[in-house]
Formats: sequence, C-alpha cells, structure tokens
Amino acid sequence: MAHKPSIPKGTRDFSPSEIAKRNHIFSAIKKQFEIFGFQPIETPSFENSETLLGKYGDEGDRLIFKILNSGDFISKVDDVTYSSKNSTSIAPKITEKALRYDLTVPFARYVVMHQNELDFPFKRYQIQPVWRADRPQKGRFREFYQCDADVVGANSLLQEVELIQLYDSVFTELGLKDTTIKINNRKILSGIAEFIGAKHLLIDFTVALDKLDKIGERKVKDEMLNKGISQSAIDKASPLFSMKGSVKEQLTQLKGLLTDSAVGITGIDELEAIISTVTELGLKSANLQLDVTLARGLNYYTGAIFEVSAPEGVQMGSIGGGGRYDDLTGIFGLKDVSGVGISFGLDRIYLVLEELNLFPESVDQSLKVLCLNFGDKEGLAALKLVARLRNKGIKADLYPSTTKVQKQFKYADKRNVPYVILLGAKELENGEFILKDMVFGEQTTHKLDETPNALFN
Amino acid sequence: MAHKPSIPKGTRDFSPSEIAKRNHIFSAIKKQFEIFGFQPIETPSFENSETLLGKYGDEGDRLIFKILNSGDFISKVDDVTYSSKNSTSIAPKITEKALRYDLTVPFARYVVMHQNELDFPFKRYQIQPVWRADRPQKGRFREFYQCDADVVGANSLLQEVELIQLYDSVFTELGLKDTTIKINNRKILSGIAEFIGAKHLLIDFTVALDKLDKIGERKVKDEMLNKGISQSAIDKASPLFSMKGSVKEQLTQLKGLLTDSAVGITGIDELEAIISTVTELGLKSANLQLDVTLARGLNYYTGAIFEVSAPEGVQMGSIGGGGRYDDLTGIFGLKDVSGVGISFGLDRIYLVLEELNLFPESVDQSLKVLCLNFGDKEGLAALKLVARLRNKGIKADLYPSTTKVQKQFKYADKRNVPYVILLGAKELENGEFILKDMVFGEQTTHKLDETPNALFN
Repeated sequence: MAHKPSIPKGTRDFSPSEIAKRNHIFSAIKKQFEIFGFQPIETPSFENSETLLGKYGDEGDRLIFKILNSGDFISKVDDVTYSSKNSTSIAPKITEKALRYDLTVPFARYVVMHQNELDFPFKRYQIQPVWRADRPQKGRFREFYQCDADVVGANSLLQEVELIQLYDSVFTELGLKDTTIKINNRKILSGIAEFIGAKHLLIDFTVALDKLDKIGERKVKDEMLNKGISQSAIDKASPLFSMKGSVKEQLTQLKGLLTDSAVGITGIDELEAIISTVTELGLKSANLQLDVTLARGLNYYTGAIFEVSAPEGVQMGSIGGGGRYDDLTGIFGLKDVSGVGISFGLDRIYLVLEELNLFPESVDQSLKVLCLNFGDKEGLAALKLVARLRNKGIKADLYPSTTKVQKQFKYADKRNVPYVILLGAKELENGEFILKDMVFGEQTTHKLDETPNALFN
Repeated sequence: MAHKPSIPKGTRDFSPSEIAKRNHIFSAIKKQFEIFGFQPIETPSFENSETLLGKYGDEGDRLIFKILNSGDFISKVDDVTYSSKNSTSIAPKITEKALRYDLTVPFARYVVMHQNELDFPFKRYQIQPVWRADRPQKGRFREFYQCDADVVGANSLLQEVELIQLYDSVFTELGLKDTTIKINNRKILSGIAEFIGAKHLLIDFTVALDKLDKIGERKVKDEMLNKGISQSAIDKASPLFSMKGSVKEQLTQLKGLLTDSAVGITGIDELEAIISTVTELGLKSANLQLDVTLARGLNYYTGAIFEVSAPEGVQMGSIGGGGRYDDLTGIFGLKDVSGVGISFGLDRIYLVLEELNLFPESVDQSLKVLCLNFGDKEGLAALKLVARLRNKGIKADLYPSTTKVQKQFKYADKRNVPYVILLGAKELENGEFILKDMVFGEQTTHKLDETPNALFN
C-alpha cells in the first residue's frame, strides 16, 4: 500500500511562486556579484569526510551529514570497533563522504587544489545549498542556500570597502533601503581583551556591552562583574559605555581607550581607513555603523567583521555577515593567503522582502497569455498562434483540452494570467483572434498574424 | 599535518569558465521552459528513504546514496540484526534519508503531497542535481544535473506535440541545428510483442532490429533466432526490416503489420496524430524521425517515447529523452493522473556544444574593464570611477594593490578583460582617464565623468 508521502523534517518543497521570489533575490545578488568582478565556482555537494571534519568544532562535526558507504560497508569495520557498539567510533569506518556544511571550507579546499590555475587576487562567488543536522525550528532548516563572495590573495583594505559597497548595491537593487551595515574589527576586540585582562572574558564582555541600549549601564556592569570581570577593568573600560556621536568621534574615543594596545590601534587605523573611504565614495541606501560589540562567531576572522541588519522595525536577525581572515587555506597546507568575504542570508532576506511587500507584483507571473481551446480545428490554429508568440519570446500556452470554457477561464485565473486569447469557429473563419485583458475585462480583435503590443510588456 | 586535499571520485569542481558555459545552457533551457508555460519547482536534496527505495529496481536501490542517522545511530539496531553483520539488513536501521536519485519520483511525491494547491494541468520544470553511486567513468558522474519538464493531468496528445517543439526551441536557441528527435510509442512495441508471441522477447527483438543498419538483415535475424524468437515470428515481422521511405509511408507499413493488434493500432494512431500536427506546425531546426527500435529503459512509459540525438558526425549518446506515463503518482496513492515529460542531458549537451564550437565567445567574459591602480590618490579616484561604472551595470574592477603595472596588465590578460583603464597622476590632474582596448591596443582619453560607449557592448 502506498504511504501518505512526506519530506524529511527541516527540508522544504518550493512552489513555483516561492521559486520565482527566491530567484528574484538570487538574480539581484548574482548580478551585483558579477558587476563587482566576482566569478562563480561550484563545488561538489559532498566532500571527503577529512576535508570537512574538525573544521567547525565538535558541535559542527556532530551537525555534519555523513553518507553511508555503498556495498558491504560493515565488512570494513574491525571486530574490536564493531563490538564496541560505539556510534562515534563506528561512523568513520562506514562513511567516507559528508554533505557540505558551509561554502567557506570547500572554497579553501578549492583554492588550494586549483592554486596553479587561478589568477590572484581571485574573486569568487558561490551560491549553493548547505546541509546541517540542526534541530529544525522556525526559520532554521537542514538544507538552505548560502550566497558567498570572497576575495583571496589581496591584503588591501580596498576589498573591505568594495564589500560594503557590494552589500549596499545588492540591497538597493532589491529595493531594501535603510539596511544597517555594522562594522567592527577583531583587532579592536583583541585590544579590549588585553584591556580587561583576559581573552576568555571577551565574549562575556561584548555580550553584556551589547545590551547597553536595552538594560542600561548599571545592569550591564552587574552582568560583567558576575561573569568575573574585575571592577578595575570595568572602570577602565567605562568610555565604551558612553561611546556616542559620529563614527569619527567614536573612533577618537576608542583610540584614547586602547592607546596602550598595539593590536587595538592597528584595528582602529584599519577601521578608520575603511570608513573614511566608504564615506568619501558614498552609499546608495545603506547606513554604515561602527559597533564595538560586534564579535561574530567564527574563529577564523582576524580583521574587519561585518553584519547587516534589516531596516528598523523589521524583527529579524542579521541578513548578512562576513569579515577578513588571514589564514583560511592554511588548514589545507597553503600558508599566507589572506581572504575577506561576505555572505547573504537568503531565507531571511526573503522574509524581510515579504514583510515589507518588496517583491515586484509581476514576480510570479508565469504566463503572459493563455489561449483557450475550442475544438480540434480551432485548437490547431491556436497552437500555430501560440507557437508564433513563443518564437517572439512571449510566455504563451494553449489550454490542452476542449473542456468547458468556464473551467478554462478558471485555470487562467488561478495561474494569474493577464491575457487570454479566444479563437473560436467565428474568429477562425475571419482569420482573427480576440485578446481579453483579464484585469480590466477589455477585449480587442486582432488578425491571426498580428502580435498585440500588450503582450510585450 | 595538512593533507593534500582532494574531492570524492565521480564529483567535480566547476571553474568560472565552466560555470559560465553551463549557465549558458541552463539559461536557454529555462528560458524556453518558461516561454512554453512551465513553472519551476524544487524539492529537497534528500528524501525519506521509503520515498525513493523500491522505485528504481534493485540496481537503483543499490545506487542510492544513503545518509547516516545522526547521534547514537547504533542504539537503534536490534541485537539480532546487529550480530548478523549483514550490511543490507543493517542499512535501513541506521539510515532514514537518501539523496535524490532522479527528479521524476520526487516530482510524483510533490504532486501527491500538494495536489490540493496545484492547478491541473500542472506544467512543471525542475533543474537540480541528482546523485548516483555508479562506478565513475568517462562522462558518468556521481553528481550531475537533470533538467526536466513534465505536464501532469492532461491526456491530450497536444502535450507531446509541444514537447517536441520545446526540444526544437531549446536546441535552436543554443545554435545546435540538425538534432534528430526520434519518436516511438510503447503501444507499438506492445503490438510487436504480441506479434512475436512473447513480451519478454521484445527487448531482444528491438535490440537486434536496432542493428539493422550496421550488421544487415541476415545477422539481425540470426541474433533473433539465437535469442529464442521463432522463425515464423521473424518471417511475420519481416516488413519491419524493410521499413523505408517517409514517416507517413512507414506508418502505413506498420499499420499493415500490426493490423490484428488493438494496442498496436492505437499506438500508430497516436503517433500519426502527433507527427502530422508537428509537420503542420513545422520545426525550426530539428528533424523528427520515427524509430520503431526506440524502447527506452524506464518501465513507467506507456505512450509516446522520445530520444534526441546530436547532429550527425558528433559521437554522443542521446542528449535528451522522455515520454508519456499513465500512472506515475499511483506509487504514492494518487491514481489516474497521466503525465508526459522530457529531459535534457546537460553534460552531454555541454560536450556537443564544445565540440562544435557553439559557445558564444563572450560567454566567459567575467569582467568588461579593469582599472589599474597607480597609488593611493589615483586609486581612490579610480574607485570612484569604478563605482560609477558599476552603477551603470558595467562589470568593472579596480586592481586592489599598487603593484607593478606589468603584473596588473598580466592579470588583465589572464582574466581576458577586453578593456583596461589607466588613471595615473597626470590623468588625475587633467580630470581624465585612458581607456585601452586590449584586443586592438587602441587608446582613447575620456573625462572622468564620461562613460565610453565601448563599455556597454
């Protein structure tokens, strides 16, 4: 007996209308990636396990989907391991491949494998799905797309400037104005870590500082004390609590604060150079904001870090993020290749555009005109007409059977078709067809060899 | 120590130039799919195992990639099964999901799950990768794309007509002329099976018949006898050996031959209707050919079957195929939904276009203009210029560092950039830049706020 079919939890089917909207976003991102000189690459959906494992921490390793070896996989497990019945020790014996967990590690692997064919600086973009065995929840999926642009082999801060412009250009292209691009620098965070006397407290420190707006200075300081940061460090860091004013003013305050930290000062200088160049060039619709509480999770960042938030009023986590990493390809044996990149969060951007009603109305118009079918003879004439319209690039279709006209109109309605063609016995006799505007109800008559202008819009 | 990285056998990395060429093909296919009124859907990369297993025969089941369950997967295996050490019985206990093997079964699952949201006839297209644990060999991969267009819920033969036009339109769009679309009908094969007295001999019969051109009538008949087909059946079938002339003439001969087979006659009538309508409408560049030896592997076909071959002179298996299936969704409990569809073989089409030199020259031009970098001040001016050009949609880039001009030119060369911009100290002073045509060597001078027409081509 046939089961009622289902799909694995955390995965999705996409309907034509959803695909159309997703493609609208992909197209805008791709278009700007290419205008900015990035080139596409694609890597396999699964990699050898050793390429992925150990690159994302223990939690990451657990979340990587492993592919069972084909054939008699059990015969490759030695007796001792087999009798242990220990899933952790057996897994590596029966799996050799694993599904891509992100696009960054495969990219690093790609750069190392293809280093002799590549022209550095290499600006690549990659838009492919990744898979994570995360517990599915609202807005978190086990299969989702990442959209990454990275430059490797260029140390210049101009790359950071360009990536900020790229964010601005993509979101402007999508009509999503007033996004905020938050920027910080890992070196500033290192400076602050020196400052508060302990690197391991840095995250507690920035997490607490990040709540300043919501809970106020007093509670932030309490939290810091609770986490083991000394009163004297907190006092010393007090200018961070009152950082106000323009980005320029904030940078000046930071400089005063981190004056004894060489790495901190380098970070400030880098930020200053990036921000002043971006300011000089101007942004189209995004705001650039310094945020010293911005830390970002991934350990490989070493310089600038970015995160983009949706326009105010939209409740949504970051819709993009990235940064500079100084030694990504080192894990695969190629040292001293600096990289910097950004990523776009497709699913969240989709939700934001949906909430703000920013998808163009025509985005899921899958058919421009439907030709109704009035019989064998009329149908053949209609098919000729449809073929002619298609040759002109018009999305046209003939209703495939001579069912009731009412039903055919209903289908046109459901498919959201703006025009319908009527070609009945009378019209055929006159060598004509009727074009009906489905929105306004207007009807116009045309010769069979005519192509109404309306169909080109 | 870092390993020398590699990718799993049977998988591929795609370089920017390969992606550009693949996208050229995908775009042509997508464009025509949409012009013909097909709508895109996407399904998850992995399905629940029970959705896929048992749908492709035993061999198919073996070739399906299974995903290891997360967590303590061993604990779900009962002791008896575990001690059997039998991979075949253990596999279903430790895997619940499997990678998509084709697009047809997931599509059937999709139609059944979403039947209440869909407007029938539903014309869907789907372009996604599939995975098979096949032994990799030249031209056969473990991960590859399928490009499918299917109509479900329409019995009309007009669908078959349209799909033939669709093949014609895609290959014409790609500049691939003189492809041959071979057509047959499973019902004719059933008629022949009745004729030779045994259904199980049908494949041997058609395989032998298919060799007529190469080995001649005598040897074909010998092969048939060897396979157990009786002399009297072979004698009866002799008109099949001399089917010559136009499609029309061949159909007449077939009719004479299968006159006693109701199903055979239905098949001929269907073919006749399809072929005469296609002939009436005309094809742009493809040839339609009746081929009674065309059988196609998949068991679910019940009506018309298609296969496309590359232009004569190109050694290549079929570059597309498809057909009518009367009960695809039945496996998931939805009866009596007829479907018909075709598929494009991306990898083979790629090889054919490559061999015939049919990719447009500009296909992998990833950058229109590279601006050289002569210093901090000049670089900033160049960045402004580049930003302005990008805002006009021109693919422009600034070389990111002030390295030797020679090296920058070399990079431009390697990236195959048609134009280079020179903006040195002198030009900056004059508010100008120099545009150099990298093919002809010509240089022209322009005001900084000017956009040379050449960059728009």
